Amino acid sequence: MQLKENYKKIRTATIAFCNHLEIEDFAIQVAKFASPAKWHLAHTTWFFETFILKEIDKNYLEFDANFNYLFNSYYNNVGSRVLQNNRGNMSRPSTNTIFEYRKHVDAKMLAVIDRITDQKIIDLIVLGLQHEQQHQELLVTDVKYMLGHNPLLPTFADTYNLVAHKNTAHTSIKTAAGVYTIGHQEKGFCYDNELGVHKVYVADFEIDNYLVTNRDFIDFIEAGGYTDFNLWLDEGWSWIQDQKINAPMYWHKINNQWHYYTLAGLQKIDLDAVLCHISYFEANAFATFKNKRLPTEFEWEIAAKKLDWGLRWEWTNSAYLPYPGFVTANGAVGEYNGKFMSNKMVLRGASTATSANHSRHTYRNFFSATDRWQFTGIRLVK
Amino acid sequence: MQLKENYKKIRTATIAFCNHLEIEDFAIQVAKFASPAKWHLAHTTWFFETFILKEIDKNYLEFDANFNYLFNSYYNNVGSRVLQNNRGNMSRPSTNTIFEYRKHVDAKMLAVIDRITDQKIIDLIVLGLQHEQQHQELLVTDVKYMLGHNPLLPTFADTYNLVAHKNTAHTSIKTAAGVYTIGHQEKGFCYDNELGVHKVYVADFEIDNYLVTNRDFIDFIEAGGYTDFNLWLDEGWSWIQDQKINAPMYWHKINNQWHYYTLAGLQKIDLDAVLCHISYFEANAFATFKNKRLPTEFEWEIAAKKLDWGLRWEWTNSAYLPYPGFVTANGAVGEYNGKFMSNKMVLRGASTATSANHSRHTYRNFFSATDRWQFTGIRLVK
Amino acid sequence: MQLKENYKKIRTATIAFCNHLEIEDFAIQVAKFASPAKWHLAHTTWFFETFILKEIDKNYLEFDANFNYLFNSYYNNVGSRVLQNNRGNMSRPSTNTIFEYRKHVDAKMLAVIDRITDQKIIDLIVLGLQHEQQHQELLVTDVKYMLGHNPLLPTFADTYNLVAHKNTAHTSIKTAAGVYTIGHQEKGFCYDNELGVHKVYVADFEIDNYLVTNRDFIDFIEAGGYTDFNLWLDEGWSWIQDQKINAPMYWHKINNQWHYYTLAGLQKIDLDAVLCHISYFEANAFATFKNKRLPTEFEWEIAAKKLDWGLRWEWTNSAYLPYPGFVTANGAVGEYNGKFMSNKMVLRGASTATSANHSRHTYRNFFSATDRWQFTGIRLVK
Amino acid sequence: MQLKENYKKIRTATIAFCNHLEIEDFAIQVAKFASPAKWHLAHTTWFFETFILKEIDKNYLEFDANFNYLFNSYYNNVGSRVLQNNRGNMSRPSTNTIFEYRKHVDAKMLAVIDRITDQKIIDLIVLGLQHEQQHQELLVTDVKYMLGHNPLLPTFADTYNLVAHKNTAHTSIKTAAGVYTIGHQEKGFCYDNELGVHKVYVADFEIDNYLVTNRDFIDFIEAGGYTDFNLWLDEGWSWIQDQKINAPMYWHKINNQWHYYTLAGLQKIDLDAVLCHISYFEANAFATFKNKRLPTEFEWEIAAKKLDWGLRWEWTNSAYLPYPGFVTANGAVGEYNGKFMSNKMVLRGASTATSANHSRHTYRNFFSATDRWQFTGIRLVK
Repeated sequence: MQLKENYKKIRTATIAFCNHLEIEDFAIQVAKFASPAKWHLAHTTWFFETFILKEIDKNYLEFDANFNYLFNSYYNNVGSRVLQNNRGNMSRPSTNTIFEYRKHVDAKMLAVIDRITDQKIIDLIVLGLQHEQQHQELLVTDVKYMLGHNPLLPTFADTYNLVAHKNTAHTSIKTAAGVYTIGHQEKGFCYDNELGVHKVYVADFEIDNYLVTNRDFIDFIEAGGYTDFNLWLDEGWSWIQDQKINAPMYWHKINNQWHYYTLAGLQKIDLDAVLCHISYFEANAFATFKNKRLPTEFEWEIAAKKLDWGLRWEWTNSAYLPYPGFVTANGAVGEYNGKFMSNKMVLRGASTATSANHSRHTYRNFFSATDRWQFTGIRLVK
Repeated sequence: MQLKENYKKIRTATIAFCNHLEIEDFAIQVAKFASPAKWHLAHTTWFFETFILKEIDKNYLEFDANFNYLFNSYYNNVGSRVLQNNRGNMSRPSTNTIFEYRKHVDAKMLAVIDRITDQKIIDLIVLGLQHEQQHQELLVTDVKYMLGHNPLLPTFADTYNLVAHKNTAHTSIKTAAGVYTIGHQEKGFCYDNELGVHKVYVADFEIDNYLVTNRDFIDFIEAGGYTDFNLWLDEGWSWIQDQKINAPMYWHKINNQWHYYTLAGLQKIDLDAVLCHISYFEANAFATFKNKRLPTEFEWEIAAKKLDWGLRWEWTNSAYLPYPGFVTANGAVGEYNGKFMSNKMVLRGASTATSANHSRHTYRNFFSATDRWQFTGIRLVK
Repeated sequence: MQLKENYKKIRTATIAFCNHLEIEDFAIQVAKFASPAKWHLAHTTWFFETFILKEIDKNYLEFDANFNYLFNSYYNNVGSRVLQNNRGNMSRPSTNTIFEYRKHVDAKMLAVIDRITDQKIIDLIVLGLQHEQQHQELLVTDVKYMLGHNPLLPTFADTYNLVAHKNTAHTSIKTAAGVYTIGHQEKGFCYDNELGVHKVYVADFEIDNYLVTNRDFIDFIEAGGYTDFNLWLDEGWSWIQDQKINAPMYWHKINNQWHYYTLAGLQKIDLDAVLCHISYFEANAFATFKNKRLPTEFEWEIAAKKLDWGLRWEWTNSAYLPYPGFVTANGAVGEYNGKFMSNKMVLRGASTATSANHSRHTYRNFFSATDRWQFTGIRLVK
Repeated sequence: MQLKENYKKIRTATIAFCNHLEIEDFAIQVAKFASPAKWHLAHTTWFFETFILKEIDKNYLEFDANFNYLFNSYYNNVGSRVLQNNRGNMSRPSTNTIFEYRKHVDAKMLAVIDRITDQKIIDLIVLGLQHEQQHQELLVTDVKYMLGHNPLLPTFADTYNLVAHKNTAHTSIKTAAGVYTIGHQEKGFCYDNELGVHKVYVADFEIDNYLVTNRDFIDFIEAGGYTDFNLWLDEGWSWIQDQKINAPMYWHKINNQWHYYTLAGLQKIDLDAVLCHISYFEANAFATFKNKRLPTEFEWEIAAKKLDWGLRWEWTNSAYLPYPGFVTANGAVGEYNGKFMSNKMVLRGASTATSANHSRHTYRNFFSATDRWQFTGIRLVK
């Protein structure tokens, strides 16, 4: 019963967000990394159709046989797929057809979900719901990217500002040196990349119980932070030169005043609000500027219970690599996490765009060092 | 009255074509050269608003002040503009808003059109209607490109095959050497690039009164035409290597049988139908293969009265350059044709996608030597 | 005897130029279009070995069997070849080996040249010598490009300024309208692209008997010529924006004074000297700025006997296309000219870098509209 | 005295390697990452001139003031510099001039080296010699890359095979779980990135005391290792698709037999020799294929004393990140290591191309996951 309720609640939440979109908003793709809304809606549905409905009923008739090709994201084991930067080339199937697809699959799922007893299938449904929640967050970030790069800077919805939160704590937390246990040990869902519980030795450290604010970052900008190569990693310095980057994503200086695009429209920057849309390279340069550093993902996890968190995905100074004993699941779902373990940095926490109950102390998010369209922020360690 | 009727007829024809589109079809841009349908609808309307309504009424209130920036195509004199390959990044303004924009401008235009007496303004309205007709053809070719590159190969409308026509004549026409007069000499509209009436000396020639067929071109393919560099211009050879081109655009070999995508869906190729969607480089290689050549634009114009034509834009072997005495009009409309006079080849004729009454013996169309998404074909000269 | 003397004189002239080079200068390739000196020396030698020595003696033993692959330029009929932008990747064979290759082939050629009676072979030797002279000019332009892009701006030789010449005439020449005959009609060598003698009708025109000077062009720059898009062809405008071009190639503004790099080193610009290193796009924009135009290649050829010329390759407003009746020679030498007839503009005249006796009234040189590293200039027509 | 002897020995060793080069070999640059030999010779010399000679004598007259610009590699603090991929564009200064530059700086250095008492300067000299040794190895790898990409595959020297070594041990070594100390603790030189001695907890592991052989890797190839995406990291899979990679660098299949290019020329592959020229992505895929994994850099360092090593730089599964407490040195030498700490993987060990005495148990080498031109290999852990 709980699973069925979760299924309904989570699937409905995806649609609720979409109510603010025009039909055209579902179709276009502005950057390779930001998939069309239509694609997110279909891909998450394809997951349930492919890994649940087709699995439990060999006679299951696909809603449309083409969709396996169109809406597979990167599961090479499941067949050929549309390349990511071509997703915006498909005006058809229409958004309405995708909504019908969702209804079709939801009806089939809800008809059977209570009767499933095979734990492996139940686990896959839970995984599908977690997957849907991940795509809910991507929907938010991809829609923001699309509208935030439209010359009109259109408002998505007045209720979706998402970047106005402020720090509630202003102290730091000390942790003693020692051997700690890392990884998911509790009951309940987690991703494969959190397993492989293992020990790490961590020296003592003192971590801020607050995030860097817009005011802090404007200090960095005004002190010439973007023009002093001593603060930057070599690749970061090349990147800001090439891309002519001199402020966080979505920031615009208008009449000598910093503004930012939010889903509630263009606004003057709230100096006390927590900084958002920052790359690892900028986070690292800022830390160097402050003579501090980013935490490792282990420090973060050890301190997590004492920290306020949940406003931003917080860049750590840990590369995204397998935990000792990491084992890839068999088949297509084994492609979920492990194969991305190169040239990514780990982010910990959760953001104001993250779906409710979709994070944990042990959750390992990961992005490239230049990615900025997620709701990312900075926490420092002395 | 005639102008008003023309205005209504031509503006309505644009919308009629669009009835076959889904909303998403209006928004996306699949290639730099193929603008979104929404953009065509707005840009042609912007032309009337900018060059007529704002010109005749200094108090005219724009439908939306942003549209001047969004829907200017390449008129540098009118202000900054959205780059061509970013047109597909704008989900807003919505298609519905663009339709309202059209209605708004049409109402204003129809309210005043009969009372305009300034010949300069009337000429600009006529230019605006010719411009609308050009974009009607681009709408057809751009929509075909979008749907023809969708993995589903969706049908636009069963009534829009457009590539099934066959030759009616099968002979050739001889023309004697001599000095001929070239350029638009009659009354009625023409573009600035057709003016500059001048004499050319042309040697005697014999031109086919029929176009190359699909059957002819399959002979070329099967004889290894795409693999024999002796047939190709150097840039053409590099281009087919780089792009892995081995058939006209939209052709697919399925179960050893040639098919092509048409706006009426995927079909077996009609061997007797006239070849379509061919680049200059392919046209030139085919001519070399047949020990013939493409006509010059002058030969074509001289023979035009005796020729059947109107099925395809026919590649000539003439570069698109100014006629002697070519003068660029002042202001933004002077940017219409002249500035494109480099690295383009002239096409003569008209295609099955060309709007009614939108061509002349003297009409000079022009595209790059690699362009294939227009309804282009081949006529040969001995 | 004359042929033998010519052979010796021309082959020796190539080496004489090279005496000013360091060994390293022979090896590197700074741009795709500017081949290493070593490659020019070998390629011209390969021509004689391949088309003469191997042709007249079936038992001829190649100096090195690999050279056919390494030093073929673009003769697809002769076998595979090293791509043009990889020529600079070959430090071996060494320059000394190439000089030995030249000596080897020269010895073989001089041993047989007087005894050859087959006119086809004699014609190929003459073609080989013309080919060597073309590469002599390319040696000059490619070496200038290499040294002119070295941060040290090293001097090649004090005696090789090459850009100091001034106009001797200052009037213009009128020519009456009529049908004229174009193409090579005299005895003596010409390229295949000059054949196809044919008539053209040309309206009356008045052509300057002088070239544009550096002073004239500085006027254009100071009047904002590079920033007024109305003066530019659309592709030219994009090109100067992308490449940030605001002066002719090799010009540097130092302490508010224009200088240029010459093969004799960096110098203050001589205002009265004839402008050099200019693209077609810049030539066309300059002509528009002066309310004049570039001549067609036919006008140029008709007026040539009355004109001073020979200082610069002069951009015409004619695209490089085949003359009526143009026939490609069989075999590899047929690849010499015809296959380049797309997206190039014709230049007429000769430059201060052109080898003695290597031009004619009917000579058709051709380059892309953006090419500037040749010794190009501007002559205008009213 | 010892420092002076080291200086002479190490500087002489650089020249000894170069005796096998033709002058042209010093000048060209075949890939962005492989600098010209001439540049290595000058850059290492520039280090001594800039950080020692100019530091200890304020009146020191530079050999050539331009060299600071030309031969600075990436020390942003020292001034502007020639971009890495433009180093091959400089035929001048000539190789002979560079040799004179070396003699000049060596004479000055040897005249003063014994009299220097300032430990900071002595440390910089030692750093300069370590730096010279690093570039000695880069000279080997860059020259191999240049000659190995020449169509002639020329032999460098018969005595420089470098890839023929075989494993001497065939067992594995077990290490118990526990907290270990990592980092450079002994006396003697080390790089800043080895400092920050710290503890790590490592679980028990068993590491091979031998490297993967060519025979092992051919098994992988023949089992379809390059075509099974399940073995690959996502970026690695894209990379081998894009680059059409299906064997280690320098491998050629000739007449169905694997060969490789060595500095001693093209040879049949020695099946028992240790694999070389492999990327991290290939190493990782191979490990997955064998159901093993790469060691972390900590495991490697802990086991190092019991391991045979020194044949290859061995890919670890550790990202190159700062040790706890890592501090960047002030000034230009602070740019030596720290700024490269993103998107690189650590390699441990040393290779047959590494200069004598130029490695340590704690040495942290680092390259991108796609780099293959170094002498890299694979050691596995259970």
